[in-house]
Amino acid sequence: MYSFKNDYAEGAHPRILNALMESNFEQEDGYGEDRYSRKAVELLKEKLGRTDVDIHLIPGGTQTNLIAISAFLRPHEAAIAANSGHIQTHETGAIEATGHKVLSVETKDGKLTPKGIQEVLDAHTDEHMVKPKLVYISNSTEIGSIYNKAELQALSNFCREHNLIFYMDGARLGSALCSSENDLKLSDFPELVDAYYIGGTKNGALIGEALVICRDSLKEDFRFHMKQKGALLAKGRLLGIQFLELFRDNLFFELAQHANNMAKRISEELKQANIKFLTHSPSNQIFPILPNGVINELQKNYAFILWEKVDQDHSAIRIVTSWATKEEAVDTFLGDIRKYL
Amino acid sequence: MYSFKNDYAEGAHPRILNALMESNFEQEDGYGEDRYSRKAVELLKEKLGRTDVDIHLIPGGTQTNLIAISAFLRPHEAAIAANSGHIQTHETGAIEATGHKVLSVETKDGKLTPKGIQEVLDAHTDEHMVKPKLVYISNSTEIGSIYNKAELQALSNFCREHNLIFYMDGARLGSALCSSENDLKLSDFPELVDAYYIGGTKNGALIGEALVICRDSLKEDFRFHMKQKGALLAKGRLLGIQFLELFRDNLFFELAQHANNMAKRISEELKQANIKFLTHSPSNQIFPILPNGVINELQKNYAFILWEKVDQDHSAIRIVTSWATKEEAVDTFLGDIRKYL
Amino acid sequence: MYSFKNDYAEGAHPRILNALMESNFEQEDGYGEDRYSRKAVELLKEKLGRTDVDIHLIPGGTQTNLIAISAFLRPHEAAIAANSGHIQTHETGAIEATGHKVLSVETKDGKLTPKGIQEVLDAHTDEHMVKPKLVYISNSTEIGSIYNKAELQALSNFCREHNLIFYMDGARLGSALCSSENDLKLSDFPELVDAYYIGGTKNGALIGEALVICRDSLKEDFRFHMKQKGALLAKGRLLGIQFLELFRDNLFFELAQHANNMAKRISEELKQANIKFLTHSPSNQIFPILPNGVINELQKNYAFILWEKVDQDHSAIRIVTSWATKEEAVDTFLGDIRKYL
Amino acid sequence: MYSFKNDYAEGAHPRILNALMESNFEQEDGYGEDRYSRKAVELLKEKLGRTDVDIHLIPGGTQTNLIAISAFLRPHEAAIAANSGHIQTHETGAIEATGHKVLSVETKDGKLTPKGIQEVLDAHTDEHMVKPKLVYISNSTEIGSIYNKAELQALSNFCREHNLIFYMDGARLGSALCSSENDLKLSDFPELVDAYYIGGTKNGALIGEALVICRDSLKEDFRFHMKQKGALLAKGRLLGIQFLELFRDNLFFELAQHANNMAKRISEELKQANIKFLTHSPSNQIFPILPNGVINELQKNYAFILWEKVDQDHSAIRIVTSWATKEEAVDTFLGDIRKYL
Repeated sequence: MYSFKNDYAEGAHPRILNALMESNFEQEDGYGEDRYSRKAVELLKEKLGRTDVDIHLIPGGTQTNLIAISAFLRPHEAAIAANSGHIQTHETGAIEATGHKVLSVETKDGKLTPKGIQEVLDAHTDEHMVKPKLVYISNSTEIGSIYNKAELQALSNFCREHNLIFYMDGARLGSALCSSENDLKLSDFPELVDAYYIGGTKNGALIGEALVICRDSLKEDFRFHMKQKGALLAKGRLLGIQFLELFRDNLFFELAQHANNMAKRISEELKQANIKFLTHSPSNQIFPILPNGVINELQKNYAFILWEKVDQDHSAIRIVTSWATKEEAVDTFLGDIRKYL
Repeated sequence: MYSFKNDYAEGAHPRILNALMESNFEQEDGYGEDRYSRKAVELLKEKLGRTDVDIHLIPGGTQTNLIAISAFLRPHEAAIAANSGHIQTHETGAIEATGHKVLSVETKDGKLTPKGIQEVLDAHTDEHMVKPKLVYISNSTEIGSIYNKAELQALSNFCREHNLIFYMDGARLGSALCSSENDLKLSDFPELVDAYYIGGTKNGALIGEALVICRDSLKEDFRFHMKQKGALLAKGRLLGIQFLELFRDNLFFELAQHANNMAKRISEELKQANIKFLTHSPSNQIFPILPNGVINELQKNYAFILWEKVDQDHSAIRIVTSWATKEEAVDTFLGDIRKYL
Repeated sequence: MYSFKNDYAEGAHPRILNALMESNFEQEDGYGEDRYSRKAVELLKEKLGRTDVDIHLIPGGTQTNLIAISAFLRPHEAAIAANSGHIQTHETGAIEATGHKVLSVETKDGKLTPKGIQEVLDAHTDEHMVKPKLVYISNSTEIGSIYNKAELQALSNFCREHNLIFYMDGARLGSALCSSENDLKLSDFPELVDAYYIGGTKNGALIGEALVICRDSLKEDFRFHMKQKGALLAKGRLLGIQFLELFRDNLFFELAQHANNMAKRISEELKQANIKFLTHSPSNQIFPILPNGVINELQKNYAFILWEKVDQDHSAIRIVTSWATKEEAVDTFLGDIRKYL
Repeated sequence: MYSFKNDYAEGAHPRILNALMESNFEQEDGYGEDRYSRKAVELLKEKLGRTDVDIHLIPGGTQTNLIAISAFLRPHEAAIAANSGHIQTHETGAIEATGHKVLSVETKDGKLTPKGIQEVLDAHTDEHMVKPKLVYISNSTEIGSIYNKAELQALSNFCREHNLIFYMDGARLGSALCSSENDLKLSDFPELVDAYYIGGTKNGALIGEALVICRDSLKEDFRFHMKQKGALLAKGRLLGIQFLELFRDNLFFELAQHANNMAKRISEELKQANIKFLTHSPSNQIFPILPNGVINELQKNYAFILWEKVDQDHSAIRIVTSWATKEEAVDTFLGDIRKYL
C-alpha cells in the first residue's frame, strides 16, 4: 500500500534529523529564544530582503491561523474566506472558538477575488452585523490552485483601499512558489500581504510554520498570544533548527519542486489518457476524475482521498505528492492506472 | 556557562532521535492515527494496568491544560488552583482565554488541601459567582514539592464528595514519582484523579505530554477539542514515537531518577554547608537561599533563575536539574559554591 | 411620517405601564426572585400545561439566543440555521463570540427542513470539522413565513433521531400563533422543541422574552449563564410584571392578532391590485414588490425598510405591523398606494 | 418586613414612569437611535461640559462592565481590580467569559492605590504572564467607601504614566458624589478616567447605566460590541427616557442625596450607641457590627444581608438605603435597634 493521501505521511527530510542530532546536547534557552530560532528568523528575513518584518515560528497551521487571526481582530470583527478555505472547513471552528465569525465566499477554484469580497462588504452595513476586517486566502489553495502576482496585487490593493487585513495561509506555499505557473517570489509577499506563513510541516519539516508579520500595527505583543494559545514550545529549538536547515540553502524549494514534479508527471500522463480533472491544479495536489471501477482497483494498492462523486460512474480523487514521494512509486501507480483504464 | 535554568535546555534523549531516524520513511496516517501513536497509547494503558482510560498525546503542557480544562467545564464553571499553580501564573491567562476563571488558594508549599478547597466552595454560594468545579494540582509542584498518596487520596475523596473534577498537571510527574519521598506508582493515578498528564517535554522528549482521561463522562469527542485548539499534529507520529521510546522499558523513570539524583547531590551538599532552602523540594527543582555575593559570583559561570529576595543580604535561587544534567557540571558547580561561601 | 419599519416603534401596551405603576413601591427581591417573576413563570407553565419545564425571563432576543446556545453547547459543537436566520445575519456574531460556529442552510422561505439539516450532517464527518449539535429555527421567520405542525413535528423527529438540540427563536411567536394559517397551540411546543422563547418585546412589552427549557439535561445552573452574560436584571420585576400582564388573560394573543390583522388588510388589498410579494408571509411582516416610483412617493410619508431590488423598476419593501399599528394609518397608507399605483 | 437589603427593591421614581407613559405612543427608531436616547446623551454631555466624549446607554452594570472591558482589551491583556471589586466577585466570571483574567489586589477598604497596582505590574514581566492593562475601580466601592479627588488624580496619573486604561464602575456613583466626604463633581471624571459609567438602576431608574468613553482610542465601533453582547435594546427609548428624566434637573442627585441621608441617620445614631462599623462608609451602604442576638431580633421585621462574622458574639450586617427608603421606616428601625441593644 503506497500513500498519496497527503504530504505529511513521512517524517522529516534527513538533513533536518541530522541537524537535530548534532545540536542535541547544546544548552539553549527555551520558548523560541534559543540561538537556532534567532538565526532562523534572521535567515528568513534575509531571504525576504526585509529586516522590518517580525517572524515567529509556530508548531502547526491551525495554531498559526487561530493565533494570528485572534491577535489581529477585535471582538466584533470577522474574517472573509473562500467556502473551501481551511479555516472555514477543516479547523473545527478554531477561529469561531476565539470569538470571530468566518464569512464565506462561494468560489469554484478556491480563490478569492475583489468582487467576491466586495459582495461581503456590501452585505455588512451596520452594527447589527459583524464587521468584515480580515481577508484569508491560502496559496496554494485547498484544491490545488495558485494565485499569480496580478491576482495577489489586485487583492492587496483592494484590502488596502478598504482597510482590510490581508492574511495568507502558506501551509503549501512552497508548492505554490515552485509551480510551473507561478510568477511570485518569496520576497514578494511582504509587499503584498499584511501577514502570512511559510509552511514547514507539509514541506519536509516534522512540525513548524514561520509566521511573517509585515504590518507594523499587527506586531505588538505577539508572543503573548502565542503563549496564551499554547504555541510557545519549551524546546523552541525544535522549530529553529528545522527552518534553519530548510533555508540554509535551497532545500525548502528543492523539496517543493520535487513534490510538484511528481504531481505533474501523474497529471500529464493522465491528461494524455484523456482523464479530466476536477480543478486546474498546478501544484502538489491534483484531482483526477476516474471511473469508479478504476478507483476500486487502485484502492487495493494505493491510499488516497475519495474527494467527490462526479456522476453515476465517475468520482474525483485527491492525489497528493510530497518531498518524499518516490519516483518508482509514481511509475508503478501510473502503470497500474494504465492497466485499469 | 552551564545552565541550571530549567529541564528543557537540551534536545531529546538520543534513543528518541534514533527512533525518529529509523521510522522516518515509513508512511503513516496523520493527526495521531499513526501506528506509533496507537502503540504508545496501548503501551501506556498497559503500564497503567487500565484499558478503560482514554489517552491522547498533545504537544505541550499549556496546550494540554487549556484543552482539557475547557473541554471539561461548562461556561460558568471555574478551576481552583494554588496561587503558585502554573495555570494561575505562567500560562498568560490561557484558561481565562477559554472563558473560565481560575480561583486561587494561598499556599506556602504549592500544594492544595481539602481545607483550602473547602474555603473556596464556602465563598461561592450562588449564581452571582462562578461555580467552582475543577481542582487543578501539579505534581511535582512549581516549587518542587510533591504529593504523597495519603494527600492525594484525601483530595480525591474530597473531590468525589463534592462533585469536583480532579485534574493533575504532570509536567514533572516523572521527577515526582522518582523522588525519595514518593509513595505513589504511575498506576495509582487513574484511581485517584479524573484526568492527568504524564509530561514528556521536561523528561527527555522533544515535545509531548500524554493526557490520561479516567472519568468516562470527560472522554466524549475529545479529539474535536484537540483539533480546535491546534493540538492535532499533522505528523502525530512525532509524539507517538517518543512516548513509545520513553516507555518501551524504564527510560522515562531512569531519566527522571537521574534528574532527581543530581538535585539531591546539590541540596545535600548545601545542607551540610548550612545553607537553608526556601521550600522543601524532594524533586528536580531546588531553591537554596544564598548570600547575594555568592550569587553574583555564580552567575558568571552558571545560568539559573533568581527566584526571590529573602532579606537584605540573601536571595533564593532556583536550580533545576534534568535528564541531561552532567555529573561533572554538578561537581564543578558544588566546588565553585564551596569556594565562594 | 408613519412608521411601518418594525414592531418595536412604540412603548408598551398601556396595561403594562399601569401594572408597573401600581406595583412600583412594593419592595421585591432582585434578580428575578421577586414575586411577580415567580408568578409570571407559574402562570406561563399553567398556560403551557406543563409544570416540568423551566422558564426564565430575559431582557432581549439576542441575549436569549446567545445565553441559551452557549449554555447548551460544548466548545466544539455548532448551531445549524437558515441562511436568513437571525443568529446568522443580524446579531453581530453573538453566537461566534461565545465560541460556536453557525452553519448555514440555504433556504428560499426562511424555513429549515430535515433534508437541509441532513446535508449539513453529511458534510461534517469527523473531528476536523465542528460537530453540528443544535438546530435553530425562528417562528415566524425573519421573512414572515411560519411553520405548521407537521413541519415542526418532522423537524422534531429528525432532531431526536439524530441527537440534535432543537431550539426555536420565538421573537415573533405571537404573530405566528395568531396567523390564519397556523395550526399550532402555545402548549404544543414543549412536546416539539427542547427550548424556545416566547417574545415579549415585539408583542407589546417594553423588553422581555420568556425562555422555556423543556429538555431536562439543558436546565442545570441556567441562572449562572444568565448572570454571566449580564441578563439577570437587578429589578427583575420589570420582566415579571410585564409577562404577568400579557398572560393574565388573552392580551398577548390579542396584540398579536391585531398586528396580523393589520398586515392582512394591507396584503389583501395589494393582492387585489395585482401586487406580487417576495415571500409568502401570513404573519405581521409582509414584503410587497412595488414600482420604484411608488416607493419613492410612499417614502415621503411612511417609514419602512427597502428590502431588496427585484428588477430594474421594482423593489421589495418590508412592511411590519404591530400591536400598536393604527387602523386609520393603514387606511391612509392603502389610500396613498392606490393613488400612486 | 421592611427591606434594607439593597437599593433596587422598588421600581422607578414616579417621574420616570410618567415620562414613559407620556411618550408611549410616539413612534421612535429602535436600538438607541430614538430621539430620547439622543437627547439624553446630549444632555449628559452638557452636564459633563464635554462634547468630545461618547456616551452609550446600556441596560445593566454587569453588561456594561463586560462590554466595555472586552471591547477595550486585546486577548492577552488583563484587568486589575480590588479583591472586593464587583467584576472579581459577583459577576459570575463575566470578564473571564470574554477571555480576560482579572488580577486581584488585596485591600481593606475596597480602594485601589498606585502602590497596589505597581505590585501587580512588578509581578507581570513577560509573555508567560498576562499583560495588566486596565485598572478597574468602583466608586462608591462594594463596601461603601468612596474615592476623593486626590486619590483619583493619583490613580489617573499612575495609569497614564504606565499606559493603563483607567475604568470606573459607577453603579453607585450618585451616592459617591452626594457623600458628605465627596470633593468630586460629575464633570471631573472625563479628565480623570478613560471610561466610566453613571449608574441609573441603583439610583431610581428601572434599568440603565450611561457609559462615558473619554479616551478617543476606545470609542471606535462601540455599538458593535453592544449589539454582539445583547445590550442594544430594540426599545432603546426605555433607557433614553429614563436618563433624560434623571438629568433634566437635579433628580439624579436628589435621589442619591436622600439615600445617603437615610444611611447617615442610621449610622450616626448607631455610633452614638457605641456601635462599631466594619468599614468607613460615607455612602448609602453601611456595615454596623451588632450582637448576634440583636441581629436575630431585627431579622423578624427587617431584611438585610448578614455580611460577615466578626467574633463569637458579633456580626457585621449590610444596611443599604435608597432613593425610595422611607423616613418612617428608618425611624422605626432605629427605634427597634435601641430596644434590642
